[in-house]
Amino acid sequence: MTSTPTAPRLAAATLEPLFAPSGVMVVGASATPGKLGAVMAESLRGHDAPLYLVNNRAAGMHATIGDALAAAGGEVDLAVMCIPAPATAQALRECAAGGVRAALVCAGGFGEAGPAGEAHERAIVQAVRETGIRLLGPNTSGFFVPGRGLRASFVPGVAAVRPGPVAVVAASGGVNHALAFRLQRAGVGVSLAVGLGASLDVGAEDVLEHLVGDDGTRVVALHLETVKDGPALLRAVERLAAIKPVVALVVGRSDVSEFAASHTGALATSWRTTRALLRQAGAVLVDDEEALVDAVTALAGRRLAPSSAPGVALITAQAGPGLLVADALQSAGVDLPRLSLQTQAAVAEHLPPITFQANPVDTGRPGAGFDRVVAAVAADPAVDALAVYGLTEPVVDLPAAVARSGAADVVPVLVGVDGPQGDLDQARESAAALGLPLLAGPTALARGLVALVEDARAQYARSVEPAPAVEPAHLTGPWDEIRAKELLDQLGVRTPPRRRCTNRSQAHEALGTLGGPVAVKLVDAAVLHKTELGGVHLNIRTTAEMDHALDALEAVGARELLVESMAATGVDLIVGARRDHVFGPVVLLGLGGTAAEVMADVAIRSAPLSEQAAADMLDDLQGRALLLGHRSGPVVDRTELARVLTALGGVLRATPAIDEVEVNPLRLTASGLLALDAVVIPSQAAHAGDHGSL
Amino acid sequence: MTSTPTAPRLAAATLEPLFAPSGVMVVGASATPGKLGAVMAESLRGHDAPLYLVNNRAAGMHATIGDALAAAGGEVDLAVMCIPAPATAQALRECAAGGVRAALVCAGGFGEAGPAGEAHERAIVQAVRETGIRLLGPNTSGFFVPGRGLRASFVPGVAAVRPGPVAVVAASGGVNHALAFRLQRAGVGVSLAVGLGASLDVGAEDVLEHLVGDDGTRVVALHLETVKDGPALLRAVERLAAIKPVVALVVGRSDVSEFAASHTGALATSWRTTRALLRQAGAVLVDDEEALVDAVTALAGRRLAPSSAPGVALITAQAGPGLLVADALQSAGVDLPRLSLQTQAAVAEHLPPITFQANPVDTGRPGAGFDRVVAAVAADPAVDALAVYGLTEPVVDLPAAVARSGAADVVPVLVGVDGPQGDLDQARESAAALGLPLLAGPTALARGLVALVEDARAQYARSVEPAPAVEPAHLTGPWDEIRAKELLDQLGVRTPPRRRCTNRSQAHEALGTLGGPVAVKLVDAAVLHKTELGGVHLNIRTTAEMDHALDALEAVGARELLVESMAATGVDLIVGARRDHVFGPVVLLGLGGTAAEVMADVAIRSAPLSEQAAADMLDDLQGRALLLGHRSGPVVDRTELARVLTALGGVLRATPAIDEVEVNPLRLTASGLLALDAVVIPSQAAHAGDHGSL
Repeated sequence: MTSTPTAPRLAAATLEPLFAPSGVMVVGASATPGKLGAVMAESLRGHDAPLYLVNNRAAGMHATIGDALAAAGGEVDLAVMCIPAPATAQALRECAAGGVRAALVCAGGFGEAGPAGEAHERAIVQAVRETGIRLLGPNTSGFFVPGRGLRASFVPGVAAVRPGPVAVVAASGGVNHALAFRLQRAGVGVSLAVGLGASLDVGAEDVLEHLVGDDGTRVVALHLETVKDGPALLRAVERLAAIKPVVALVVGRSDVSEFAASHTGALATSWRTTRALLRQAGAVLVDDEEALVDAVTALAGRRLAPSSAPGVALITAQAGPGLLVADALQSAGVDLPRLSLQTQAAVAEHLPPITFQANPVDTGRPGAGFDRVVAAVAADPAVDALAVYGLTEPVVDLPAAVARSGAADVVPVLVGVDGPQGDLDQARESAAALGLPLLAGPTALARGLVALVEDARAQYARSVEPAPAVEPAHLTGPWDEIRAKELLDQLGVRTPPRRRCTNRSQAHEALGTLGGPVAVKLVDAAVLHKTELGGVHLNIRTTAEMDHALDALEAVGARELLVESMAATGVDLIVGARRDHVFGPVVLLGLGGTAAEVMADVAIRSAPLSEQAAADMLDDLQGRALLLGHRSGPVVDRTELARVLTALGGVLRATPAIDEVEVNPLRLTASGLLALDAVVIPSQAAHAGDHGSL
Repeated sequence: MTSTPTAPRLAAATLEPLFAPSGVMVVGASATPGKLGAVMAESLRGHDAPLYLVNNRAAGMHATIGDALAAAGGEVDLAVMCIPAPATAQALRECAAGGVRAALVCAGGFGEAGPAGEAHERAIVQAVRETGIRLLGPNTSGFFVPGRGLRASFVPGVAAVRPGPVAVVAASGGVNHALAFRLQRAGVGVSLAVGLGASLDVGAEDVLEHLVGDDGTRVVALHLETVKDGPALLRAVERLAAIKPVVALVVGRSDVSEFAASHTGALATSWRTTRALLRQAGAVLVDDEEALVDAVTALAGRRLAPSSAPGVALITAQAGPGLLVADALQSAGVDLPRLSLQTQAAVAEHLPPITFQANPVDTGRPGAGFDRVVAAVAADPAVDALAVYGLTEPVVDLPAAVARSGAADVVPVLVGVDGPQGDLDQARESAAALGLPLLAGPTALARGLVALVEDARAQYARSVEPAPAVEPAHLTGPWDEIRAKELLDQLGVRTPPRRRCTNRSQAHEALGTLGGPVAVKLVDAAVLHKTELGGVHLNIRTTAEMDHALDALEAVGARELLVESMAATGVDLIVGARRDHVFGPVVLLGLGGTAAEVMADVAIRSAPLSEQAAADMLDDLQGRALLLGHRSGPVVDRTELARVLTALGGVLRATPAIDEVEVNPLRLTASGLLALDAVVIPSQAAHAGDHGSL
């Protein structure tokens, strides 16, 4: 584990010298076949720019970096380092001194390799900081730009990766290659593929910022293992996703921290928080690398317009596979709207009467009129995206039939096929020539559609105005329950009527004033778990019951009391805001009760957030039905809930002295939301642990 | 929707004439290229047995079925019908009369096609019943047996499907082809591939029974849309899974019933119940067709020995993809045990010190000694299965290196690779020649491993003795709460001390005898929801409180009362048993409370079941941590819980007069499980609806 600080991000130093270098130098090139320095030099020969090889013992190569730079006459932007860790910092300085503006360091042996490695790491970070050279790596197998023939990679197979619209930004060099190869197998080309490795300088956020201006990139596949600078990453995703789709795969659903640390030298980031915040920033989230490739394949075609609930139609030549697609779509929450009667009538002109035609449309084997069926469905006003599936057949070129329909001029269209490899390859070629995304099989087709829909939803959510700025909280601690509820009052979050009492007669008077039933609670900023301590007495109605409660509270040493009206029954929620150690202020929403707790049914967003985004958190909850009138229960007012959530986020944004606010429970009653208990944790206390990342 | 009964299953009539016919006849063959009767005839020419074509208007074909049979001299086992629905029944009778023992009916237009179709369906069911001919279909695109060149399919691409170890049994002809093609693309061969269509005679259970004795089949891929005869299906899976792995994909996670009904003419079966019961019968369950193919690819190699928790090891040439595999495995509950110090020492001899070597083992690019690393890991006593992953490289034949290690003689070994298509094809060929299952990419590799582990777990669970037979319940209704609790007493399920009271003085006396606090409840077999009616009063301690409760109960018309000791606090469960309309008696386990309810966190098993199987139900629950000492709470005794569940299942098995028993809540307290409320529903009442399939 390393604690070396990363180099400062120099906004001025673009990544152009790294990804579009005028000349390239290999430091530690080799003439011995099979050696990494030889493989790299060979791989770089395909690049359409001058190449300079440095090795002080190989004939025909430049003996020193200086010699190479002199020969190049200042035309070297990128140095590829095939040398051991200890020699790297000095080589970086020599390169930078000679005008080299970017370097790729492939070697391992830095932060992940114990104290000696950490020293080497500090040395190269220092060199980067002092010279301004941009550094990719260390501990990566490189990057490649197929469109330029630029392949800074040890893996010869990358020569087969074709130029195309997808940029791959992977935490790991291995995953970068695996993704690029999977794209190649899917018939999809790559604009840029980067393995970040240890990210001592160039991080995912830098490459994403670079891609904002990269016209060759139409969609981005992002693979994340850890996040060093959460806010910078979210800003970059937000900027990029506004103009082209970003699909993200986050590692770490399970605890892989030990293995991951050996690999990246960094602490694992919370999987759940990272995913939620990336989605909020506009990314489409996927579960594995297969879904990642399916998603970018689909999104490399046309993007849907922003929409909260796009409608998808499916035309299938075989009912069984169509059922698999429909089942996968509906399970992912994608709407398959019933086609209009007009559309159904148009479709029926070309199909036998027994097939299902409302959506999905079951055509049977594509025959005459198939293209008109496709056109009619695409024209239905409820249809925002269309998928067409069929088994490959020698007499039917499905992509061509779809293209003939003109549907792709109306809505984004995906084609799904299944067939033996040779037929599939033919269908891919046909689809590629026609500009139609092609996916192999029902599940891949469904995943592609889900990605289109999720992207449209994310863009819609982002299009909503952000929340207004929030005033700092005027209150200060010590934050006992009463103080915390006064903060909620300021924020406009409803709390039950209450009295602070310091003796028995005040408590009896409060019961009289408030009327029973009341709750009587110990008030002490130092006590976080009142209930466990016997500090909470509920349903007090009579003087006798109050005396009984007061006796018990005296016995546990209570000096101040809160007497409060009991709330009506309802459904309990937990809401809160806290500082995530990677991403900063986040807000949380969950259902109350232990069942929801052990199932980790929680929605998370970065603050500030719009009321719309806050209201949408409800839809993340597996148990949301409980808040929507389950068994004649109360129905949550989404606006009221959104106001509570944005207000809590605002407190953390505006008040550095507060690290966490938790309202547990926030009760949904027939007359709205009511905060029954609240805890505020000041900044110091939050550092004591126990309130870590979700 | 049809209500036609299916033909009776004739145990004597095997499927040999269907899948291994001595001669084949095409009824409705055609000489016109492109017509289905021509495509089918052409497709069947590859079969290594005589072929007879029937068409009364085509030159060179037999004019009638009788002519063809006369020419064949009794050597036709299978008739393939390429004729319209109305002509089918008569053709079936003619075939059967001439000694044909099996038929494939491809046409649609039967039960799914309204009243006319239903009449045709009744006619062919009648013909099947009277002649004993076995019928596959209707409404299917057929089946194929690549090893015999027997391709009764309209899809020419099936010629590319190679012979091999996987049998495909699909509800739909389209899915049958899609799966076979996906297997072809994965380099895996097929022994038999069947699309069942409407299953009027031959159902999934028949084909599975056939596969028990089919030596060419080593693993079975099962696709289900609906289940007609649940018990027969479960019996067949149980028999088959005992000798070869069965992997099942069940459609219907979401509500696809409308489209499905149009396709199959049958009611959708409960997805959740079907999956749970198939798993209990020994099948491995998967979520989509990609996972299905990955699972059978892995299981076509060696099967693991039955085990409740097999240990898996992963060797990876690239850390990043290895992390994806490890994350997927752990998320699926697969154990990656730490390798022994001895193994780690053996591994360390061949690897640089900085890589992770405890499991996963990160080798870096495979070099000298790689095979010895693989051998050492395979020999570790904690390792029951091994996966090796690497990017394809020209100088490294990964399957060959794995084979050299001899690891596959010690444990099942899977190889995972990523590379461009050409390199992947080479790796597949190499692996196939060496008998090693090969999977493309980290997720596919992880899915393969999960399938190996799930199969071993299912076999282990099945190896446990079944539960003992249960005596019929001696009690009869009317089943009010007290009667229901007496049944629980008989079963050995603990209930709180109680008194039945018919007047106020008995109630007061009961409070005195039992001591407070008590619950006082309305007792009436006709009232299912006492609480909603104001029929439940809790925490009664004093005479005054009792009078208050009795007043209220009188007001709602209570004539009989239950006075019962209040139970200690704890965690509430719901347990029950009911008759599923497809599968018969099932038992259910869920957590109490509305949150668990709306999340549908329920475990389901078929009864009878062993105590071991019942205890394992706990592991299905997402919120199981609540029962395992969450926040210093009570820990469930698995044996006690298993006894309750098996006893409830036993009641339904032994007592036809009872359709459902529900204990809600069954409370887990510090001193064990206690049934706080119980409902028994006699058989008549259960047909009133409201207690349908989960």
